Amino acid sequence: MKLNWVIPTFGFLSLLALTFSCKPKDLGTTISGDAAAKVYVAPGQKDEFYSFVSGGFNGQMSVYGIPSGRLLRIIPVFSQFAESGYGYSEETKPMLNTSNGFVPWDDSHHIALSTTKGEHDGRWVFINGNNTPRIARISLKTFRTEEIIELPNSGGNHSSPFLTANTEYAVAGTRFSVPPDAVADVPISSFKENFKGYLSFVKIDKTSGRMSIGFQLKTPAVSFDLSRCGRGVSDGWFFFSTYNTEQANTLLEVNASQKDKDFILAVNWKKAEEYLKAGKGKKEPAEYAHNVYDERTHSATSTMIKEVMTLDPKDCPDMLYFIPCPKSPHGCDVDPTGEYIVGSGKLAAVIPVFSFSKMIKAIAAKKFDGEFESIPVLNYEAVLHGEVQKPGLGPLHTEFDGQGNAITSFFVSSELVKWNIEKLEVLDRVPTYYSVGHLSIPGGPTMKPHGKYVIAYNKITKDRYLPTGPELAQSAQLYSIDGNKMQLLLDFPTVGEPHYAEALPAALVEPNSVKFFKLEDNFHPYVAKGEKETKVVRKGKEVHVYMTSIRSHFAPDNIEGVKVGDEVYFHVTNLEQDWDVPHGFAIRKANNAEILIMPGETCTLKWIPSKAGIVPMYCTDFCSALHQEMQGYVRVSPANSNVALRWGTGVNLDEAAKVSLK
Amino acid sequence: MKLNWVIPTFGFLSLLALTFSCKPKDLGTTISGDAAAKVYVAPGQKDEFYSFVSGGFNGQMSVYGIPSGRLLRIIPVFSQFAESGYGYSEETKPMLNTSNGFVPWDDSHHIALSTTKGEHDGRWVFINGNNTPRIARISLKTFRTEEIIELPNSGGNHSSPFLTANTEYAVAGTRFSVPPDAVADVPISSFKENFKGYLSFVKIDKTSGRMSIGFQLKTPAVSFDLSRCGRGVSDGWFFFSTYNTEQANTLLEVNASQKDKDFILAVNWKKAEEYLKAGKGKKEPAEYAHNVYDERTHSATSTMIKEVMTLDPKDCPDMLYFIPCPKSPHGCDVDPTGEYIVGSGKLAAVIPVFSFSKMIKAIAAKKFDGEFESIPVLNYEAVLHGEVQKPGLGPLHTEFDGQGNAITSFFVSSELVKWNIEKLEVLDRVPTYYSVGHLSIPGGPTMKPHGKYVIAYNKITKDRYLPTGPELAQSAQLYSIDGNKMQLLLDFPTVGEPHYAEALPAALVEPNSVKFFKLEDNFHPYVAKGEKETKVVRKGKEVHVYMTSIRSHFAPDNIEGVKVGDEVYFHVTNLEQDWDVPHGFAIRKANNAEILIMPGETCTLKWIPSKAGIVPMYCTDFCSALHQEMQGYVRVSPANSNVALRWGTGVNLDEAAKVSLK
Repeated sequence: MKLNWVIPTFGFLSLLALTFSCKPKDLGTTISGDAAAKVYVAPGQKDEFYSFVSGGFNGQMSVYGIPSGRLLRIIPVFSQFAESGYGYSEETKPMLNTSNGFVPWDDSHHIALSTTKGEHDGRWVFINGNNTPRIARISLKTFRTEEIIELPNSGGNHSSPFLTANTEYAVAGTRFSVPPDAVADVPISSFKENFKGYLSFVKIDKTSGRMSIGFQLKTPAVSFDLSRCGRGVSDGWFFFSTYNTEQANTLLEVNASQKDKDFILAVNWKKAEEYLKAGKGKKEPAEYAHNVYDERTHSATSTMIKEVMTLDPKDCPDMLYFIPCPKSPHGCDVDPTGEYIVGSGKLAAVIPVFSFSKMIKAIAAKKFDGEFESIPVLNYEAVLHGEVQKPGLGPLHTEFDGQGNAITSFFVSSELVKWNIEKLEVLDRVPTYYSVGHLSIPGGPTMKPHGKYVIAYNKITKDRYLPTGPELAQSAQLYSIDGNKMQLLLDFPTVGEPHYAEALPAALVEPNSVKFFKLEDNFHPYVAKGEKETKVVRKGKEVHVYMTSIRSHFAPDNIEGVKVGDEVYFHVTNLEQDWDVPHGFAIRKANNAEILIMPGETCTLKWIPSKAGIVPMYCTDFCSALHQEMQGYVRVSPANSNVALRWGTGVNLDEAAKVSLK
Repeated sequence: MKLNWVIPTFGFLSLLALTFSCKPKDLGTTISGDAAAKVYVAPGQKDEFYSFVSGGFNGQMSVYGIPSGRLLRIIPVFSQFAESGYGYSEETKPMLNTSNGFVPWDDSHHIALSTTKGEHDGRWVFINGNNTPRIARISLKTFRTEEIIELPNSGGNHSSPFLTANTEYAVAGTRFSVPPDAVADVPISSFKENFKGYLSFVKIDKTSGRMSIGFQLKTPAVSFDLSRCGRGVSDGWFFFSTYNTEQANTLLEVNASQKDKDFILAVNWKKAEEYLKAGKGKKEPAEYAHNVYDERTHSATSTMIKEVMTLDPKDCPDMLYFIPCPKSPHGCDVDPTGEYIVGSGKLAAVIPVFSFSKMIKAIAAKKFDGEFESIPVLNYEAVLHGEVQKPGLGPLHTEFDGQGNAITSFFVSSELVKWNIEKLEVLDRVPTYYSVGHLSIPGGPTMKPHGKYVIAYNKITKDRYLPTGPELAQSAQLYSIDGNKMQLLLDFPTVGEPHYAEALPAALVEPNSVKFFKLEDNFHPYVAKGEKETKVVRKGKEVHVYMTSIRSHFAPDNIEGVKVGDEVYFHVTNLEQDWDVPHGFAIRKANNAEILIMPGETCTLKWIPSKAGIVPMYCTDFCSALHQEMQGYVRVSPANSNVALRWGTGVNLDEAAKVSLK
């Protein structure tokens, strides 16, 4: 393993560079004979865990089975997804609406499974949109994106969406400090005067999961990276890693790597709630979209919101504290007890472990080393539980096995390192192939880890699989961790960039999974609940086709009277009422995607015919032995034609003005 | 296994319906102990075969490793793909251009790997676009789509792209007969008068692989389903399955299932070439797009072509023959010797096997049972080698093991059946879970099958994996076939609809795989081959940013002087010259996707800023330990602003009008 490495001319980075071409141990020795059996899920059997993996630059979420490493499904979230019509169908287009109009892509980095009392509850999974700052909520009943909320005043929603122990809030820290949205045209060089950090606290309704921005905290202009909530003893707090406390605006690889210590920001969010109640908040003008998908109508709406509640720390003492942390920390992870906070400085030579109870004492004793833009900076030693010495190079992220141990990923030395939290002793290390970013232990970021496996999400693939040209899938590796030694079991490639993942036992999700939508509960405004309700209605230039699909025909499957330039809406209701009988719908040369319609659902494809002629349409999902016969025709006449609107299935349109099959 | 089944009121379909709720054998008995070891590819090891799988309704192609069943890569072809920016970047948008403008989706059904002398040669893989009739060619060096050609006069390009033994042609048969493109507005009921079938013969350049439509054959209005070329003794012929010879235009599940026999169309394409040379072809007006991606410029162009050469069978005797084939045949498969043609009538109770040499004799002896629209219909018995009796229900598709045996998939009885071609005896049968469509044996459709595995691509998934709501991944199953009995080894879920696949030994592809693009060979008009060449150029409202990326910064990373309403083009050249070091580029709230730039490549993102403010941009692909620092800012000023254009990296823009890092 050798990477070309841009060698900076200072300190620790040079050390990293020099030691970087470390060679992992010979692979043959690391795979023991029972690995195959440990990851094999025989036909007819099921995986033990669901793993929800962020898609990184594909903007989606992927669901893998563990231990098999099989891709069970890609859930479209922030990006158009031609496979299902997400972002192309009329029902889903509003989900991708933002304050800057329709945005068909994002970069999704972090997964957060909902928790109750600090343990996974199997209700929802949240994910961030990094580029156009947003948070999405996905239902674990339907595995569909139900809600997306945009975040104003944020420049890169990387530090998101981390949840409180009872899923009261999802937090979101800005990655790139930017001037607040209300500030218009300032020079980039005015960074220190005009740029700000913002932390958004997105409130989550206990019952419905509905999101709203509770409040935003204005912070100094730093970059927020990762975060974890307090739990147990530290409930009511949040901890955020920060970098670029140098406040550089160019060549950050050099200019944001100057200081030996950046900060972890400790936020007392219950205190923030008190300030809000006490009227310390200010409503400020803003503009952000709130998009909600409702399975009652199988449709989304988008609402633009015009103000946001903000709290200024200057008005709210004893709410924020900085903890010095070496160097450009990425991971900021809280152990299952809530007592220990692990900072992983990606340019640091040690892993500092902070003690929550020491922090509380240090605050009480005012053990401060000055302030950073009016926020107290705690004394490092006063808050430190201790440091893990010589852990590896480039620590990134830590999760917990529930047995008192932590496992940390090391990008530069390309390994996982297991260490004891209390004693700070390194217990074991295994190489990763190559350069692990995040790692994931099922339940690992919660109060109840299931310490059976750890999955390394690696950043470099190179020669791990058969080559596929210059572009390669990213790679994950599964290790068992329930023995004394970590054991590499399996390499599995992944779609997009599997930035981070959370996994939970299948039993928390499987029993609640919706198999199909009940037709009687379908309140789509253009539903046809049976073939008798099918029709074609013209409203000026709009033509609405109330269509049904059932094995193996559409009703209607012959339509005449459509004209060039019409806006034709095919509202297709899938009449099936059984699991796994979707139908698809497509029409030739549409400037659009297909729609994939689940049983009981209605989906709409918009089509503007541009030429006269006979245009075929068909079912795109192999639904039955006679799927290939599931087709129809639309006659498109010239714009000035007087061909009458008529339609039917199984009849000659010339013989009946309006007919249906039954 | 039980499916709700729309029971028609006639003949064979009722039989199917009654026998459909067959229960597969108990699963426990079918998985033997060594299956885990047979499919396990240990970390550090590689798969034995590449399998290229059509994405069905996702419009893409997927690459899986066999025997592991791991998804190595999704190759974007016909659909926008936010993950890599395909269909969003300026360089790739032309690939999705058609005679009806930009079409961002298709339904890709069939894979064809290029062959030389009837054997896989590892050069290219072809795939069809079904909805907007097109054929694409993908390079097996870069795993990228290099070319897409549209097909006029076609209504659903299902029967495509099947290749001749030396890849002289890819053929494409229309699935839905439609009036020729030149015919404008006719009633649907005029099907028999106005609708036509078309077979397109797309010529492929021996060296470059470039496609052009050689000629189109006008045929009666039937639906073409699948096809295979002759080889060996039958070289120079093509065989197409057809259905809807009833010529119905509505409710085809009933109306196209009336006849006991449809046809296989035998086409003497070498004879067609002779007719062309003899001047029998006619140039007809048409309109279709020809899109070519060139790695010299890393850019695509789209050309609209205005005429097509056609041959009318009426002018060309002894070129087309119909062979009667029971009933609504899907598969039409030619064995490795070229002597046997297997018809799989999806509503048939037997599998007919036709003999090529008997066909030639029957033609010579004029053993015809009349004509169908002027094309001779051969006598069934005169052409028949024999029938496989009681093979199963709903035969779909057949491939060959190279040992004299065929394996046929059965959708309705949900099984694979192995039988001897010469003796027509059933040798073995295994259940599939559930309802297999196509099957794939590595090399199985060529003259050199590698009879080690067969993969069943199933249409119903239901309970095979952990549930993921109403929408489930489709499922494939891997069986070993090198023993006496077929053995189920593995279930693996797949993306999209894995309609059909071809697999070949890794050794034919792996050595030629391109690892990165040489910067010196980059002739993109906006390339910057080093940071010294970076610049920002305004041309009226257009702003062109010649940008570079290298671990871990962009040049420039600070830009001022951009105004609201400008058309900003970020031309990003990835300066890396090593394998697996892509960079990504995204800018906040762009109404676009990211671009993912391979080493040595230039990609362009178009952005029209709509509001004044500071807008962050960043690298979207985790490229290095300091990836998180790889970011920058663009200052957007009001449209009427006079802020000067200036840019740089590592400098204060206020201190220098134009500066770069080096």
